[in-house]
This record gives sequence, C-alpha cells and structure tokens, in this order.
Amino acid sequence: MAGPRTRHAHATETRELILTTAERLFAEHGVAAVSNRQISEAAGQANNFAVGYHFGTKTDLVTAIVRRHAPAIEHRRMDRLRTIQSSQTLRDWLGCLVLPTTEYLASLGSPSWYARFIAQATTDPALRQLVIDETTASASMGGVSEGLKRLMPVLPADVVAERSDMSRHLIVHVCAERERALQEGTTTPRATWEGAAIGLIDALVGLWQAPFTPTQ
Amino acid sequence: MAGPRTRHAHATETRELILTTAERLFAEHGVAAVSNRQISEAAGQANNFAVGYHFGTKTDLVTAIVRRHAPAIEHRRMDRLRTIQSSQTLRDWLGCLVLPTTEYLASLGSPSWYARFIAQATTDPALRQLVIDETTASASMGGVSEGLKRLMPVLPADVVAERSDMSRHLIVHVCAERERALQEGTTTPRATWEGAAIGLIDALVGLWQAPFTPTQ
Repeated sequence: MAGPRTRHAHATETRELILTTAERLFAEHGVAAVSNRQISEAAGQANNFAVGYHFGTKTDLVTAIVRRHAPAIEHRRMDRLRTIQSSQTLRDWLGCLVLPTTEYLASLGSPSWYARFIAQATTDPALRQLVIDETTASASMGGVSEGLKRLMPVLPADVVAERSDMSRHLIVHVCAERERALQEGTTTPRATWEGAAIGLIDALVGLWQAPFTPTQ
Repeated sequence: MAGPRTRHAHATETRELILTTAERLFAEHGVAAVSNRQISEAAGQANNFAVGYHFGTKTDLVTAIVRRHAPAIEHRRMDRLRTIQSSQTLRDWLGCLVLPTTEYLASLGSPSWYARFIAQATTDPALRQLVIDETTASASMGGVSEGLKRLMPVLPADVVAERSDMSRHLIVHVCAERERALQEGTTTPRATWEGAAIGLIDALVGLWQAPFTPTQ
C-alpha cells in the first residue's frame, strides 16, 4: 500500500504531466478549442476528470500554466532591473522588457510551447485580461514601466499606454512566430534567440523614440 | 413553386448569413473552437450540414470570409498607392500599410468582427499561412513592400523581413484590441480609428527608421 509520501509524489507528477500536455495543446489549437477531457486523454489519464480534479476550472488551469513559467521570467527581470536601475539609456530599459522573456525561451530549448501558449491565451477574449495581468502586473514590470515614463517625459499618458500595448504585442507575437518556425524548421529573420532579442530591442527603441502626433 | 432566380437569391442570402455568423463566432472563440455544426445552428439553419454544403471545408469557409473583406481593403490601398507613388516620405508609405485597414474597419461600424477574426486566424497554426498570404500577397502590398525597400536601402533583406513581420503584428493586434474595446465599451488610447491609425503610423515610422544591430 502506498504511503502518503508516495501518493503525494505521484499527484505532483500527474499535475506536471497535465500542465505540460495542456500547454502544448493550448499552444497548438487555442485554449477554447481544447477540452479538459482531451487534455486528460492526451496526458494518458484513465480518469477523464483528472484535469478538473487536479486544477478545477479551465481558468485555474491556464493560471497554473502561466505561474509555472512567470516566476523564472520575473526573477530574470528583477536581476536586470537592479543592474540598470540608474541607467539613462532607453535601450537598457527596453532590454529589461525583452531579454528576460527571450532568454527564458532560449533556456527551454526547442520545441517549447510557452510563447505560442501566451499568444493563444491573449487572443482568447475570456482569458486575455487574466493572462495580461498575470504576466505584466508584476513588481519588475512596474519598475520597467516607471523607468520608461521617467525616460520619456514628453509622452502623454495615453501615448505611453498605447506604446506599452504595442510593445507587448510585438514581444508576444514575434516570440510565438519564432518558436513555431524553430519547431517547423522554417526560416527566421535571426539565427538565435539572442539575435531575435536584438532585433526586437532595435525596433522598440525606434517605436518609443518616435515623435508622436496628438489627437483629440 | 420557387423559380431558379428566387432559389438563387435564397442561396446567396444563406451564404451571407453563414459568413457573418462564422466570422463572429471565429472572432469570439477562435477558429479551431467552432464547429461547422455550431455555425449552422447559430445561423438558424435547420440542416446541420449547411456550412459544408455552401462552403466545403473550414479552410474554404475561412478563405471566403477573408475574400469578403479583402477586395475593399485592396481597392483602398491601390488608390492610396497611386497618390503617393512618387513620395520620398516614409510616413506616406506606412500610411499605405495602415490606413486602408483602419478606414475599412471604421466603415463597418461597431460591433465589427473582422479585426478579431484576422487576429484569431493568424494565431491558428493550420490557417495562419493561408490568411497571411490572402491578406498580404496582393498587388498593393507588393507595391508598398517595394516602396519601403526603396526608401530604406540601408536595411539588409533579413531586417526588412523582420520589420515587415513586426508591422503586420502591430496592425493586426492593435486593430483587434481596439475593435474589442469598442464593443465592450472599455478605454482605448485613441478616441477614433483615425487616431488609432495616426498612433500606429507614428510608431511604425520609428520602428522602420531605427538603427539596426547586425547579428550573424
């Protein structure tokens, strides 16, 4: 008979397996297209309610997938933020936005699914706000946001909000397309994640420094 | 007994109803999440095979939705291209990229679904290439692409490809988020589609003019 320690280890293993399987299926097909039952089956669970038993609702499952990755990215961003805290160079601050994500994705090897999972989840009307909050309402993102505002005092709040949204779109979708291309073996504009990050930072420097046209 | 003319008119009406319904459902839930049967039901078709009968596969249906809108956008872009053909101003060429889409979306009124439909379809691995080809492999997009290369001779082909992809991501996802916010009545950085277009063009001018860092 299995003792409590063994049962606990087994449950942890099952949870991990479900998270990995769900992330891949959501990345491939979209969150709304995949049922808890399909995830249970693909994860080899005899019980079709395994996902519900271990995670509750689909929203809880999506949150659990995000939280499996977010702390590692947050940790990288806090480290970088400490190093560049007093920098007056826009490029350093935009590096804080881009590099923690691209370096983390590079560390996962290929195939990874997290970039496409985030792209799918932020395109899903029921989940996008949750996922945006989970990934951007962190201490480090607050720090980057403050830094950008300080560096670009000429930009009105609306334009800062607009360019922050644009930066998020660029990072999410450039990373998702690159992750897909790496898996499919198709051409990418840059050879490495490091190169992709440099391309993103170059573009974001231009985007944030661009003169703005006020509208009413 | 209905004559052939009446039957033809009825079939055209049914096709239109299915296209409108499918576009909305795909925009809301993602393409993979919605079955032909759900579309037939939501379009009030007694026959659950109505979508298959009128359109064939889901890929054919997605293509038909794109082709319902693409010619109007293409027409606007060709007109604008003719006006700015000899312009040496980057802003004019980026206006050719942005304005035909934003002006068309503005003309649809709210709620529209096309911007979110395109965001969903280009996040779907099975459909993204098809939709990208349908929306960017046109005569007018070829003209804009040539114009941008001519104006930015210093950029290597890889960087042109990278920034073209980035421009597409920005236009698709800024428009989709704005369309959703308009429907939900939430805040947008700009009050009008015209303002959103100006914000996009400002940002793209910066993105394209940004110095680039070569990587191997």
